[in-house]
Amino acid sequence: MSKINQISTYLKKHNIDAAFITTPDNVFYVSGFRSNPHERLLGVLIFQDAEPLMILPQMEVPDAKNAGWNFDVVGHQDTDQPWQLLKQAIENKKITPSQIAIEKSHMTVERLEAIQELYPDVTFTRLDDQLNSMRVVKDANELAILREAAAYADYAIEVGVSEIAEGKTELEILTAIELALKKKGISHMSFDTMVLSGPKTASPHGKPGDRKIQKGDLVLFDLGVIYKGYCSDITRTVAFGEPSTKQKEVYETVRKAEQAAVDAVKPGVKAMELDKIARDIITEAGYGEFFTHRLGHGLGISVHEFPSVTGNNEMELIEGMVFTIEPGIYDPSITGVRIEDDVVVTKDGVEVLTKYPKELVIVSAE
Amino acid sequence: MSKINQISTYLKKHNIDAAFITTPDNVFYVSGFRSNPHERLLGVLIFQDAEPLMILPQMEVPDAKNAGWNFDVVGHQDTDQPWQLLKQAIENKKITPSQIAIEKSHMTVERLEAIQELYPDVTFTRLDDQLNSMRVVKDANELAILREAAAYADYAIEVGVSEIAEGKTELEILTAIELALKKKGISHMSFDTMVLSGPKTASPHGKPGDRKIQKGDLVLFDLGVIYKGYCSDITRTVAFGEPSTKQKEVYETVRKAEQAAVDAVKPGVKAMELDKIARDIITEAGYGEFFTHRLGHGLGISVHEFPSVTGNNEMELIEGMVFTIEPGIYDPSITGVRIEDDVVVTKDGVEVLTKYPKELVIVSAE
Repeated sequence: MSKINQISTYLKKHNIDAAFITTPDNVFYVSGFRSNPHERLLGVLIFQDAEPLMILPQMEVPDAKNAGWNFDVVGHQDTDQPWQLLKQAIENKKITPSQIAIEKSHMTVERLEAIQELYPDVTFTRLDDQLNSMRVVKDANELAILREAAAYADYAIEVGVSEIAEGKTELEILTAIELALKKKGISHMSFDTMVLSGPKTASPHGKPGDRKIQKGDLVLFDLGVIYKGYCSDITRTVAFGEPSTKQKEVYETVRKAEQAAVDAVKPGVKAMELDKIARDIITEAGYGEFFTHRLGHGLGISVHEFPSVTGNNEMELIEGMVFTIEPGIYDPSITGVRIEDDVVVTKDGVEVLTKYPKELVIVSAE
Repeated sequence: MSKINQISTYLKKHNIDAAFITTPDNVFYVSGFRSNPHERLLGVLIFQDAEPLMILPQMEVPDAKNAGWNFDVVGHQDTDQPWQLLKQAIENKKITPSQIAIEKSHMTVERLEAIQELYPDVTFTRLDDQLNSMRVVKDANELAILREAAAYADYAIEVGVSEIAEGKTELEILTAIELALKKKGISHMSFDTMVLSGPKTASPHGKPGDRKIQKGDLVLFDLGVIYKGYCSDITRTVAFGEPSTKQKEVYETVRKAEQAAVDAVKPGVKAMELDKIARDIITEAGYGEFFTHRLGHGLGISVHEFPSVTGNNEMELIEGMVFTIEPGIYDPSITGVRIEDDVVVTKDGVEVLTKYPKELVIVSAE
């Protein structure tokens, strides 16, 4: 069932006349058309039975059609009154709404007031939870894109590791990674790329800089790409020159915790249980105080979305959920290590999207 | 008068009890504290007479104080009910609001409903226009930062021009520019850096790629940095090897149009008049159909803000306004050229913030 049909079904079930979707991420989700028209009006209207319609700036109409939108469109010029055009288009469908669902966590008060002026007697209900519950489960097409996005993240780690050399700075390595991706057509990262070395690995939100790589450093990469509108997110930590016993111990603890959580993924398990599995291993090894964040987060059109993999999230995993598993230990007296994979909940277990090896990679410093 | 005092004065004049500012750009504008807490609540409450207060995630309280916020703070944990804490803090000030001003073009319906639940009898008015009219005029401190941001943009053009060489790709030059800026501590550009060469210069929204620089190309750079929270934005077009007569003609037409508009800037002139001055010169030279966008846009905390320098904006220039002037000609049969400066309206004329030369720079192709 298409996403639009799912929403129509929801509207019928709850006796709502229309859903009005204006958040660019959600417009993309239901229509395949990605645009950010800033203050100009872009929205998809979905009804119980009538054909949906998209309202958008006139100049973007061809792009929406190229993106596969085959339903009604209402294009508006800067000199038009888009809200009046919208009302007219609804009247043309012989629909007189008494209840409209909107994204209350995104729609601005100004826009709600504009709609209320058109429809003073309509009541407005939340569409947010319905959209979240749809987006949290990825379909086959979305999974295919997420696999590709993860493969580019693997490639980025390969490039980063191959660039490690004595005296090179974090920023030089970061720049080489992003240039290599740009050459493959990846123009946007899903967040600011992180390349941290030596003591800086112990800061979970550290900023890459001019520090030069030295023998004995661990080097931490945390990055992801945006591919066809979907995000990947990977972390790997590698050694430059032979690591110390303590560095190895921290690394192997994180690796064991990460793998145990990955192996526990299957439908019916609670998100909080995964967090506990990884955290218990790190705590038993004596590093509990240095694992200072949640285990992971959902991944899709947004780099942080549902489900949140935290110690208090009782949400049960469902087939098709995609999220990160990324335990870390940040012990300033030894090193920081984080290992992060993107995983999908399958029918009876897990598929790991990110494939770069997790055995400790040691780059020769000779 | 501080920005908070200006808002207090506005509240008194309009008999509004409080202003609640939650947009990260505007929180930064009134407080100096820059943060994007996503779904967590961050806001500044300003009153007619009482001391203002900031509500924010507890873990960010030290950052707000370091940024210079010396007034009340209400820190909240993820387990708290931030709206209840907010109401309590207002009660502690012995204030019972009956009218609150909010940013209706940014505040979400969900948040408004949360406040309405606390204060069912309060009416909510727009603060947007007041904030826009304040932000459109920059004070001495803001101008000092914008001068620095423009100087980094000049430097970026210098780097870009020095990187031009036969066979180098647009992306390689782009990467060199951003690496050089990162080494100077500039981690974020104000928008995606543009390096376009040869026929691609004729696309005003072209995307840098693998095209290799060739003798006879013009090369167009459009870029800007974010410095201390403020944006710069510069465009320069240079030649690689001796340009053709036609290329020179297009360049000199744009240069003349740009300079004429810059020279016309002073208080009392309308924004639309600047657009007309530049457009008339380009039209008289026979290239009118190839100047397909407005002359410029305001610049500050946002890279596009008020005033819009368009053919129908009757807004009169005021001392302290900052905006771009960026005419272009995009003739696919010859070349694209755009020249863009950042300017400030002074007491009796104009200050140009971007200083990279505008005589046609010819990089030797030998």
